Amino acid sequence: MTSLLQSTIASIKPLDSAAMHAARERQDNLTKPNGSLGRLEALAIQIAGIRREPAPRLRDKAIITMAADHGVAGQTVSLYPQEVTQQMVLNFLNGGAAINVLARHIGGRVIVVDMGIAGVLPELPGLVSKSIARGTRDFSLGPAMSREQAISVLEAGIEVLEEELGRGLDIVGTGDMGIGNTTAASAICAAVTGQPVASITGRGTGVDDRQLKHKIGVIEKALALNQPDAADSLDILAKVGGFEIGGLAGVMLGGAARQIPVVIDGFISGAAALIACGLAPGVKDYLIPSHLSVETGHRTIYKHLGLKPCLDLDMRLGEGTGAALGIFLAEAATRLLGEMATFAEASVSQAEPERDKEV
Amino acid sequence: MTSLLQSTIASIKPLDSAAMHAARERQDNLTKPNGSLGRLEALAIQIAGIRREPAPRLRDKAIITMAADHGVAGQTVSLYPQEVTQQMVLNFLNGGAAINVLARHIGGRVIVVDMGIAGVLPELPGLVSKSIARGTRDFSLGPAMSREQAISVLEAGIEVLEEELGRGLDIVGTGDMGIGNTTAASAICAAVTGQPVASITGRGTGVDDRQLKHKIGVIEKALALNQPDAADSLDILAKVGGFEIGGLAGVMLGGAARQIPVVIDGFISGAAALIACGLAPGVKDYLIPSHLSVETGHRTIYKHLGLKPCLDLDMRLGEGTGAALGIFLAEAATRLLGEMATFAEASVSQAEPERDKEV
Repeated sequence: MTSLLQSTIASIKPLDSAAMHAARERQDNLTKPNGSLGRLEALAIQIAGIRREPAPRLRDKAIITMAADHGVAGQTVSLYPQEVTQQMVLNFLNGGAAINVLARHIGGRVIVVDMGIAGVLPELPGLVSKSIARGTRDFSLGPAMSREQAISVLEAGIEVLEEELGRGLDIVGTGDMGIGNTTAASAICAAVTGQPVASITGRGTGVDDRQLKHKIGVIEKALALNQPDAADSLDILAKVGGFEIGGLAGVMLGGAARQIPVVIDGFISGAAALIACGLAPGVKDYLIPSHLSVETGHRTIYKHLGLKPCLDLDMRLGEGTGAALGIFLAEAATRLLGEMATFAEASVSQAEPERDKEV
Repeated sequence: MTSLLQSTIASIKPLDSAAMHAARERQDNLTKPNGSLGRLEALAIQIAGIRREPAPRLRDKAIITMAADHGVAGQTVSLYPQEVTQQMVLNFLNGGAAINVLARHIGGRVIVVDMGIAGVLPELPGLVSKSIARGTRDFSLGPAMSREQAISVLEAGIEVLEEELGRGLDIVGTGDMGIGNTTAASAICAAVTGQPVASITGRGTGVDDRQLKHKIGVIEKALALNQPDAADSLDILAKVGGFEIGGLAGVMLGGAARQIPVVIDGFISGAAALIACGLAPGVKDYLIPSHLSVETGHRTIYKHLGLKPCLDLDMRLGEGTGAALGIFLAEAATRLLGEMATFAEASVSQAEPERDKEV
């Protein structure tokens, strides 16, 4: 490990229990029955602990959408040709993709990052370039990247997060684009959790039964060939990962280190979370799971991480679309905590748990 | 039935299939894999059918929060004293309740309606008064209201919806406040679905095991005494309903008649939906289920109506809090449909389902 990755991991602290305690005290005095806002209450308390404030406000919101290409796409594991990665990056920059619409809807910005697209992009306003190579190598034939490259993409993710801090950042969502990346995410999921490939591999953009069987075979072959070490997240990322997946893991590490809540999107972000939490288990408390993807392995990832998604809307698009919805819920939770009146302020009578005994 | 209720029911039409077809065509050309936005795709198409437009926009959003008191509260079925209904209405008018915060968060307004609070409220700016009596009668001792009163509250709900149309209304959410109203909602749920009272009665604001047993006993006694006719929704509303529940059923009828999507909140709104759909089955297509409440009977209501909630956040507050989150999702769905670029517009390559066969 080089110094940015190491120092970032070293600076991740536990959540602030004093802020969480104060938030819970306030929560219990708000004009509602105790616990009646369900998961929004827990979410607000978690964010208080992350931000180290009893009633944090989430003003500046961003989705970091990282794009990269995958050598394994050459094995025809997706319905879409590889050039779609680059075409979609242009769509993001032009504001026409789903993530742009949802970011506008929640009042947040989209940061589009080239982590290693195959094609050559001109310098484009709004595009953050952290490309370290034109796509990974085909991991069904050998490692996707070197260990040094794996460290570089993680550090690039940390850098992107830190650069955004300067523009104002209270909460961040993760998003991805990369033809072939559900294949990489499934491989990571299998390597980390030890579950059979067939049980955690889904249809991605929508392959049919025959194509799914082929995809499973490609992943099984890659794992048998590369033998990633389940106890070494860097090894897994290098052997069967992807540049955008490593970058997103870096965003999570950076967010945890800088006390920014990180709302994780779907299956690809989940695979990145496996890498980030493998490198630094303390990251987990800084993660807010947004939705449960249709992608089969996503449930396995959440179970492994001990996280429960907030939404289950049968989505499977990526880009950060689920994370955007999750940021909305996180902001709702903190606004409720910060803006609701207390029983005393509103002159509302409190519960009388034993009142029927007087009768 | 008197004329407003009758004419409203008569004017409920099926959804516009041409608009839905056009919406689906557009949906399938947007820059994303087919179906990858999951339930948001179906939601946008439903709203297109309701609004009779291929790409509807939801600008004006309102939550109608109806409050009333319940005679059965005298049986001590809640942790809170009855005056809390009125105190919370003042809290709504002052902007300090959860629903106010969430309405601000989604850019919508809250319409607070007195449908029959026990206490005497002065004329208050912002309070819509449709009170027909100072709370229902205790339905464990006889009918909650007369059949004429049941018609009146339904028509009051229709009137509130129609009055809001004049202020601009593209989507509406339902909300409730009324100490004792989970007892009424459970009684309605049991009467309509025929399920055992114990299986559909929950803890409301948070009663303990002993109090829950008492609450179940009160409902069983009320059903045995009043014998509501499962085939006659007006009879059920009159015998074991509540003024705010009838009012919300009226909002649903009015919304369906005037082609406004109605996002239904939790258990109380669910009971109102049972009444509305009992009176006019065509209402169902105009309803958007928001969340699954912790309240046990809510699942039974959704199953009976054939609806699947969008959110499961362990909430159980009412007021329209779940509906507000549902309106956010509905607006997200319509914005995605209306604002995303198509494959052609963005020059993105489409899927090639058979591309691997070329290899």
